[in-house]
Amino acid sequence: MPAVLFDAYGTLFDVYSVAELAEQLRPGKGAAIAALLREKQIDYTRLRTMSHRYVDFWQCTRDALQFVNAQLKLGLGSDELDALLSAYAKLKPFADAAPALAALKAQGFALAILSNGTPKMLRDVVDAAGFGHYFDALLSADTVRSFKTTDEAYSLGTQWAGRPAQELVFVSSNGWDAACATWFGYRTFWVNRGRAATEVLADPHQIGHGLDDLVQWLKA
Amino acid sequence: MPAVLFDAYGTLFDVYSVAELAEQLRPGKGAAIAALLREKQIDYTRLRTMSHRYVDFWQCTRDALQFVNAQLKLGLGSDELDALLSAYAKLKPFADAAPALAALKAQGFALAILSNGTPKMLRDVVDAAGFGHYFDALLSADTVRSFKTTDEAYSLGTQWAGRPAQELVFVSSNGWDAACATWFGYRTFWVNRGRAATEVLADPHQIGHGLDDLVQWLKA
Repeated sequence: MPAVLFDAYGTLFDVYSVAELAEQLRPGKGAAIAALLREKQIDYTRLRTMSHRYVDFWQCTRDALQFVNAQLKLGLGSDELDALLSAYAKLKPFADAAPALAALKAQGFALAILSNGTPKMLRDVVDAAGFGHYFDALLSADTVRSFKTTDEAYSLGTQWAGRPAQELVFVSSNGWDAACATWFGYRTFWVNRGRAATEVLADPHQIGHGLDDLVQWLKA
Repeated sequence: MPAVLFDAYGTLFDVYSVAELAEQLRPGKGAAIAALLREKQIDYTRLRTMSHRYVDFWQCTRDALQFVNAQLKLGLGSDELDALLSAYAKLKPFADAAPALAALKAQGFALAILSNGTPKMLRDVVDAAGFGHYFDALLSADTVRSFKTTDEAYSLGTQWAGRPAQELVFVSSNGWDAACATWFGYRTFWVNRGRAATEVLADPHQIGHGLDDLVQWLKA
């Protein structure tokens, strides 16, 4: 059965929906809080991978939030920090996610998430969105204790599908994730939601602006 | 002989001095160009390290500049891009660099640079500043084809000095570099020039705001 692997955060689920709660807690700073939180969270996964100091994605997110609280001088207390972290467990899906997943499922694709998130984070966010029935597997980098873009993390997809990467589609909204998955060998689709410039790394096989473009591409 | 290892870019040499030329080329955008160039340059070193797709720091810088040109819609031509890259070869040293290096040299410390830069980049920037006589070694990550924060890159310092990391001082203005060098085992000094929050990774052994603070610390 052909299979499609999805990145979770930013691709199916909107990490900037954390900005809404942040805006309520610190009016005027919601967008800045969400953007710096995302940047630091990713930084920490990379630094810990390169330095062989793995902690899971939940802890990376906690640590990133602690940095953001200090850097932006937010003065958030532990209840407020916990509330922001909890928001991560129920990030809103993008509006184009459910229709695309349903269409691909109907076309006979096996669907999986391949994410840096912990198994619990993935289960929680998928359940909160009511997306459980779409997915045949939730593949977490935590099971190999190594974050994307390492081969260990990407190979979760090939191992699950029992197929070479060239026969699998990998979908991400993160330009770096799509590029590095291309290096790994996947057929890649970059959901360029933010109309960003292409990363000067490896070119994804296809680029679209939403998940509807992915459905069109896979029909062809 | 006791030894001090210095990060180069941002620590001894001001990467944002590229902003001056960028500002001349695209008025009003110099700071944004320099900041995004630095961010992408570092991103690319990390992604290529994790994905085992090494190219040297000069190429990472070229690639980052190509991204910035597209992302910020600058429309810079090849001559302008070359000029910006050339500016990297003669970044200005911070005003506190020469006095600190002279003081440490006089106190009997062996001094080295330990940087992601290529051997040529390091030689050029050191020569342009007239700093050649201060340094006993210019240690380039290119010789191990692996960028900081890997053990391979940091161990260039211990191999050169012939001493364990615990007996060597490592100095960086990048919070992440100071933190990860602490994990590696160095005695670390974070030159927190930007008064940033401490990275939630590993705490450096000492924090100051300039290289004069480093000299004071090493006197004690």
